[in-house]
Amino acid sequence: MADITAVSPLAPEGFPELPVIDGVRFAAVEAGVKYQGRKDVTLIELAPGSSVAGVFTKSATRSANVLDCQAKVGLDSDAGAAFIINSGNSNAFTGRAGEGSVAAICEAVAGVTGLPQERVFTSSTGVIGERLPHDRITAKIDELVAGLAPDSIEDAAHGIMTTDTYAKGAGTTVMIDGHPVKIAGIAKGSGMIAPDMATMLVYILTDAKVERALLQQILSELTDVTFNAITVDSDTSTSDTLLLGATGASGVEITEPEGPFAAGLHEVMLELAHLVVRDGEGATKFVEISVTGAASDQDAKTHALAIANSPLVKTAIAGEDPNWGRIVMAIGKSGAAADRDLLTIHFGDVLVAEKGWVAESYSEEAGATYMKAQELAIRVDLGLGDGAAKVWTCDLTHGYITINADYRS
Amino acid sequence: MADITAVSPLAPEGFPELPVIDGVRFAAVEAGVKYQGRKDVTLIELAPGSSVAGVFTKSATRSANVLDCQAKVGLDSDAGAAFIINSGNSNAFTGRAGEGSVAAICEAVAGVTGLPQERVFTSSTGVIGERLPHDRITAKIDELVAGLAPDSIEDAAHGIMTTDTYAKGAGTTVMIDGHPVKIAGIAKGSGMIAPDMATMLVYILTDAKVERALLQQILSELTDVTFNAITVDSDTSTSDTLLLGATGASGVEITEPEGPFAAGLHEVMLELAHLVVRDGEGATKFVEISVTGAASDQDAKTHALAIANSPLVKTAIAGEDPNWGRIVMAIGKSGAAADRDLLTIHFGDVLVAEKGWVAESYSEEAGATYMKAQELAIRVDLGLGDGAAKVWTCDLTHGYITINADYRS
Repeated sequence: MADITAVSPLAPEGFPELPVIDGVRFAAVEAGVKYQGRKDVTLIELAPGSSVAGVFTKSATRSANVLDCQAKVGLDSDAGAAFIINSGNSNAFTGRAGEGSVAAICEAVAGVTGLPQERVFTSSTGVIGERLPHDRITAKIDELVAGLAPDSIEDAAHGIMTTDTYAKGAGTTVMIDGHPVKIAGIAKGSGMIAPDMATMLVYILTDAKVERALLQQILSELTDVTFNAITVDSDTSTSDTLLLGATGASGVEITEPEGPFAAGLHEVMLELAHLVVRDGEGATKFVEISVTGAASDQDAKTHALAIANSPLVKTAIAGEDPNWGRIVMAIGKSGAAADRDLLTIHFGDVLVAEKGWVAESYSEEAGATYMKAQELAIRVDLGLGDGAAKVWTCDLTHGYITINADYRS
Repeated sequence: MADITAVSPLAPEGFPELPVIDGVRFAAVEAGVKYQGRKDVTLIELAPGSSVAGVFTKSATRSANVLDCQAKVGLDSDAGAAFIINSGNSNAFTGRAGEGSVAAICEAVAGVTGLPQERVFTSSTGVIGERLPHDRITAKIDELVAGLAPDSIEDAAHGIMTTDTYAKGAGTTVMIDGHPVKIAGIAKGSGMIAPDMATMLVYILTDAKVERALLQQILSELTDVTFNAITVDSDTSTSDTLLLGATGASGVEITEPEGPFAAGLHEVMLELAHLVVRDGEGATKFVEISVTGAASDQDAKTHALAIANSPLVKTAIAGEDPNWGRIVMAIGKSGAAADRDLLTIHFGDVLVAEKGWVAESYSEEAGATYMKAQELAIRVDLGLGDGAAKVWTCDLTHGYITINADYRS
């Protein structure tokens, strides 16, 4: 098991080259909301005519920002839009003052950009329960707007980080009827990650032309198999926000929920989701858990998440221990249908258990060797039906404890 | 945060003096099932006329032993009974061979004691998925029976331990109509503890005379507020078993589900449950979480368990960080009803938050000072209704990671 490293051992080699999205500009500045000496407020501006869709945490104690975004995201408008994000303070559980902070930020952004306030979407991430010093943010709007540039997406990816150890970006260009359509996104998040998303902020931009309701439909469907299929620690944040803006500048109109645009968006969302898991607090292993043969897809996901969230499974992975008994335990406790004597378990290509028993061909050496890999695939077949699901997670290490035992200090 | 200690820092000073229960005898021997040089097979014999009740894990992958006990515990018999327990190997996920091991052990105990096989209750605890070498157990039955003694309950408490750092016992004597009725119990368990119980084995004996159905009713009701209200890591074992035997030797007959007998049993069960939490793997803090003002008792328990199982709450407690924002997060994700702006949170007597905001009187110093205590009480009032629940848990430390990252090695 590793100690905390400056950068996650599962990090990609660097920030990727991302397509420049026509109609979108980015800026990030140092505002000293909490952190000193790093960019902590980010502005993303979308041109007039852009449509915006979003998905949000389902937490009953979600932040004022999330409530405000949810109220705005269903409105149609041709006025353009702005996403403004601060790190260091989540503006969550700050009572009525939280709503005041959101209003003050929206008013300031609207004042400088000329956008209507209902087209300004705010996000705040960081400590819960401390009053957001929003005047530090509003004081920087002029500087942010003056600095907006189409190619500054990497600055934006840095500006939204909290305990992240690297900036996260993903993008693709898909050809539709011979025309290129670009998609690029950034994300932050490393702990408090679980379905319902969890201290995760994601902003995805595209130059496709997509009517708002269809954009929302595509985004919601893809969220189930990407951001709602990852977990670091089962904890769900009060601030999770995923915003998707489509400027239409490519001139290519999307009219169907499936097809190359949705496929490209899925690819970008899945890559960003995996990048969040790879930065899981203290993570040293990236783990795909695949469940097949369940009574339903929902049952498969329930089992997969029970495995992915089990502290005993996650610590065994950290210790490179092929302790498949803990997987059986997690399946047993999940509450979804299972028959002990029909279970089949693989670690990668190693058949570990079948028919309620360790496989005849299995050797502890084969299991132990497999577990030393940095990327692991655990496959469970329940032998009951056609339900299937995949989820992604990381291990639970001393690094997680160290990071979270004194995050606020 | 502490490293692993030989004995939990939350351990009691020693094994208590327990009342000797007329009609019960205990023995424990070294059988080398897995561990060497320690007692690992325990026999508890109950006199003819005893009634037996039990509660068990709800895991869908529960062990052959549990399935066998569940089939037997509803039967009436005057023949007496035996509980036989091995540590080191759980006999879980061992396919048909698991059933064969249980049958072989029951047959051997019945052969030596003269009991019918349906009055022999087996438990196995330890590694999942490895075949139980039951011949090492059956070879020791003669020695066990020869060693049975009424005052050997502490030996039995040692014999059932796995990763426990101390033996767990609790007892009381209650007066009913001027006559003493004695209750004494032992437990094991330190990880994989969660509602539905989880690698927890508990054996409680009394000399009360209680008809089987009533004994079962009392036991089931008290389990909800004791063993099903504790959690170490949210993981649930495939082997959890709680057996309660009543010999009737006191001559005092219990005919009502409530009263001094149930109160005494509650006290013993709660003490044993707390002892399990105090031995939580890596635990350095004992935490009571009390939720009031919920829409229902069930909602209160859902919130309390969400708090108790949150890795972020548990690591904050380990770090002595009064991070009440994580409590708000856990309430938000629990799925039960909550209104952010009606929440009140206390740490001990320190009012931390009220009306959706940090309390005016709260100081970080007061919170931080409180968190240094070894025993903590976190109180949440939801302001919605009359629902209430209490649960008990421990913190999540480096010790937990160390113990569980290479338990099998």
